[in-house]
Amino acid sequence: MYRSHTCGELSEKHIGQTVTLGGWVQTIRDKGNIIWVDLRDRYGVTQVVAENGKMSDDVISKLKSLGREYVVQITGKVIARHSVNPNMKTGAIELEAIEVNLLNASITPPFTIEDETDGGEELRMKYRYLDLRRNPVQDKLKLRNKVALETRKYLDSIDFMDVETPYLIKSTPEGARDFVVPSRMNPGQFYALPQSPQTFKQLLMVSGFDRYYQIVKCFRDEDLRADRQPEFTQIDCEMAFVEQEDVLKTFEGLIKHLFKTCRGIDFTEDFPRMTFAEAIQKYGSDKPDIRFGMEFVELNDVAKGKNFAIFDDAELVVAINAKGCSEFTRKQLDELTDFVKRPQIGAKGLVYCKCNTDGTFKSSVDKFFDNEALAQWAKSCHAVAGDLIFVLSGNAHKVRSQMNELRLHLGNILGLRKGDEFKPLWVLDFPLLEFDEASGRYHAMHHPFTSPKPEDIHLLATDPGKVRANAYDLAMNGVELGGGSIRIHDKALQARMFELLGFTKEDADAQFGFLMNAFEFGAPPHGGLAFGLDRLVATMGGSDSIRDYIAFPKNNSGRDMMIDSPSVLNKDQLDELAIQTVIATPQ
Amino acid sequence: MYRSHTCGELSEKHIGQTVTLGGWVQTIRDKGNIIWVDLRDRYGVTQVVAENGKMSDDVISKLKSLGREYVVQITGKVIARHSVNPNMKTGAIELEAIEVNLLNASITPPFTIEDETDGGEELRMKYRYLDLRRNPVQDKLKLRNKVALETRKYLDSIDFMDVETPYLIKSTPEGARDFVVPSRMNPGQFYALPQSPQTFKQLLMVSGFDRYYQIVKCFRDEDLRADRQPEFTQIDCEMAFVEQEDVLKTFEGLIKHLFKTCRGIDFTEDFPRMTFAEAIQKYGSDKPDIRFGMEFVELNDVAKGKNFAIFDDAELVVAINAKGCSEFTRKQLDELTDFVKRPQIGAKGLVYCKCNTDGTFKSSVDKFFDNEALAQWAKSCHAVAGDLIFVLSGNAHKVRSQMNELRLHLGNILGLRKGDEFKPLWVLDFPLLEFDEASGRYHAMHHPFTSPKPEDIHLLATDPGKVRANAYDLAMNGVELGGGSIRIHDKALQARMFELLGFTKEDADAQFGFLMNAFEFGAPPHGGLAFGLDRLVATMGGSDSIRDYIAFPKNNSGRDMMIDSPSVLNKDQLDELAIQTVIATPQ
Repeated sequence: MYRSHTCGELSEKHIGQTVTLGGWVQTIRDKGNIIWVDLRDRYGVTQVVAENGKMSDDVISKLKSLGREYVVQITGKVIARHSVNPNMKTGAIELEAIEVNLLNASITPPFTIEDETDGGEELRMKYRYLDLRRNPVQDKLKLRNKVALETRKYLDSIDFMDVETPYLIKSTPEGARDFVVPSRMNPGQFYALPQSPQTFKQLLMVSGFDRYYQIVKCFRDEDLRADRQPEFTQIDCEMAFVEQEDVLKTFEGLIKHLFKTCRGIDFTEDFPRMTFAEAIQKYGSDKPDIRFGMEFVELNDVAKGKNFAIFDDAELVVAINAKGCSEFTRKQLDELTDFVKRPQIGAKGLVYCKCNTDGTFKSSVDKFFDNEALAQWAKSCHAVAGDLIFVLSGNAHKVRSQMNELRLHLGNILGLRKGDEFKPLWVLDFPLLEFDEASGRYHAMHHPFTSPKPEDIHLLATDPGKVRANAYDLAMNGVELGGGSIRIHDKALQARMFELLGFTKEDADAQFGFLMNAFEFGAPPHGGLAFGLDRLVATMGGSDSIRDYIAFPKNNSGRDMMIDSPSVLNKDQLDELAIQTVIATPQ
Repeated sequence: MYRSHTCGELSEKHIGQTVTLGGWVQTIRDKGNIIWVDLRDRYGVTQVVAENGKMSDDVISKLKSLGREYVVQITGKVIARHSVNPNMKTGAIELEAIEVNLLNASITPPFTIEDETDGGEELRMKYRYLDLRRNPVQDKLKLRNKVALETRKYLDSIDFMDVETPYLIKSTPEGARDFVVPSRMNPGQFYALPQSPQTFKQLLMVSGFDRYYQIVKCFRDEDLRADRQPEFTQIDCEMAFVEQEDVLKTFEGLIKHLFKTCRGIDFTEDFPRMTFAEAIQKYGSDKPDIRFGMEFVELNDVAKGKNFAIFDDAELVVAINAKGCSEFTRKQLDELTDFVKRPQIGAKGLVYCKCNTDGTFKSSVDKFFDNEALAQWAKSCHAVAGDLIFVLSGNAHKVRSQMNELRLHLGNILGLRKGDEFKPLWVLDFPLLEFDEASGRYHAMHHPFTSPKPEDIHLLATDPGKVRANAYDLAMNGVELGGGSIRIHDKALQARMFELLGFTKEDADAQFGFLMNAFEFGAPPHGGLAFGLDRLVATMGGSDSIRDYIAFPKNNSGRDMMIDSPSVLNKDQLDELAIQTVIATPQ
């Protein structure tokens, strides 16, 4: 071992001992007759000191020759510091260098290895191994490590078994795109990488494993948005002989355990619950951020019939009340209007109504709505003097989605989305199906294995869009942490689902025959849930971005900038796999 | 919840309580006026009973209608058994059925769900979800679950951090074949699935993570032997600021912890160690089974020069002593001769010498060796009256490998390889390189990142084959559980290694430039090790075969028989990926 202690553990009790440390040079302060070196490792920083005359010339000259990020082994005597640094774990001591051994030099890093670095995103991705030296990044991965281990301990304590499912599985072209893997031993055939271990965990329930979990990589070949990665990690779980309530209780317990052990936060109350329908109506989102109110108020009653065609023609007129914002400036209002008119949001405009402190109202549609009409809006919105009402109108689905964006944006602007506040919410009773205009058929809202609510099964024949599922999500702070459902465990019902989803019997059998066959051999009722680990940890860390919580992330083109992947294969490799690449011809 | 208790937990203390169980029907015994049903789940079996007249007709008729593997929910009263079954966890009680609720029926399984099943390998693989219901298979996966979790707990307790490395990485066509993944977003380019996270874990050391571990799937597209899988699981570890001794101590600690917590076996002594050279000389194997002796004895001194051309022409004449086997029959000797002459082993013949109990010798080469000469053999072999000596000769490398097979085979025949005995052995000082006749150049014995021993570095220029590496394996019972090395952390030395291995500078840069560049920014000395989890668990379970310890294994053609994968893709999928399959034309 190149060291007797780490750079994070020396304290008063070591004073007088001779110890050896190994680490990286963080800073050097050379005052001529005395030199200080801060030595860093994962565990902390220790200040090394050497004084001219007191220490050998060899030690002094070796210390003087060091540069930032050099790796060095230093033996010395632990002494008390002249002035204790209370902000440093090792701030009570310093190490008087006796022997200095350079283990490896460093050229100048392309950006500073500091909590606040001068490196841009692209540079930090290319040199990710240097970015990973920075404390904020290491802290995020330490949190991830702890969350993963505590997840395992908790689930193990309630009889969940970690069972590994295969990565080389079968392509099922429904849903998201698969990543595929050509099989050399079976020319012309391909494996697929799993989008989730869904069918395997259900088979484990058929096998009687009773309670399964796995922290597992999943893969989706989708066009990447800012917060998506082609490979991501799930905490994947399944239970047999359970109903929805059992699943919710179990995983509420897990989340509480994680916050307690990893963040020191105690959720003493049951997590609140809301139906999907209510979430959409009140927040325009199936993952509402309930750290703040500003709930939607539907104004059809009071806003229609005043000859304002835009409202009159709208399916839904909906408002939110920004408390205490009546003094927003013209500029602020214009910015918000621009915000909702951005193509990603797509509103045509934004109506506001200021509830002035003098009791009057000032709105952008004064022409159509007099003070009395606006007072009605205010009443509906529980708005009082000093508040500011925003109104959007149009197609109900679209306008709710637009209003959701505006609400979250206002939450950000007004500081209502506090980084140290965590508000979980179970969203229940998701619809089983959603109609896809493009393909002219129903798609599974969760996946084809989700069970309809027994009391809604009769609607499958008459009004499939109305069928609710025993499906649930856990939202927190406007983020979907995970979700799941009670599954179908009956072959006939599963076959009917595939039919509803537009599968031919042949396709259903070819792709999922093994699962439907398994249901014939005594499948127990079962259900489960999966959390996105990347997102869970980012949320627990108070961050929006998952990328920092992944050791080696890919960029938005799916590239690993550090290793420069993907890359071309040589011809021998392609020949062995019996595939050719096709150069796309311009069209 | 469909149950109040599991089928494995009821005991005397529950007598009198009304409980609800859910599970599978294991057996039904219908004696007309009384019916017993054994109900099974992952946790155990509970006997359910109902007596005509005492229980309702509904309960009786429902129980009578059940079949094997039906899933059923039964509410009943816990009563004392007439005759306690001490072999059953729940043997003190039975459940008097009050209400029976069929949850799912089962058609007749294709093989019996019993500890000893009548199902053949292929059938069990196709219906793996039923095979997984069998206790011996569940027990193996329970052991795996426990080993994995205890590994994490142990490594966490000594500051190892679980860091996930990417699965979509870059193809490096040296070494074993990669599985590759076409990139839709980067047409014509491919990711590769990792053969191991080697370079990433080294980068984590450069990043200062200090101690890393991961239980991670790895992929190798090799022609499959009986005991290989295209995807396999590694316990992958790396440490910074360490020397070989630190790595050995750390992971010896892990293995001891696993045997203690998962098998109740205490290794009180340090694991024995042996150099690679000694292992080859004494056992003809780099993973010797030291549960038994029968070490190789080299007979060149006493066996050559007696006009027996086969020995005289041989590079090596080597013997083993099968203690107490002098009474082996002609038939047994012929079988052993046939064994070593099998093409997989390839010996030309087998010479024996019986040390008769009367003090005489009887050998298959009496013509060339008189009693006195044979007495010399016996002396060299420490053979006494009653022993049986086997001799092979030829090229030293080949004959050692043949003798290794014979020795292990004799160990099996003689019952010397006991399933409940575990003999670890560190094998040290592996050669850095091995010469490959086919390609006419050196290959890395472990991998290109392994550090030569400092004292041997001067041989790199003059006699590369003689250079020993700081590389080590942990063998147990003739199986390689894992291995690792101290790595190169110097850019120049790493570049020199690539050169020795026949890389052009361009190839080395294109494939591993990111790692060599990383070494310029302060790379600490580091080393590590990886255990094969599948093999570790199989060995701990006393089994030779890893397949049973994998929930969903593939067959020898790399196929998953259950889901019928790999399979063909549709044209749209191939088009999107910009690849075509090439139908091989007969040659």
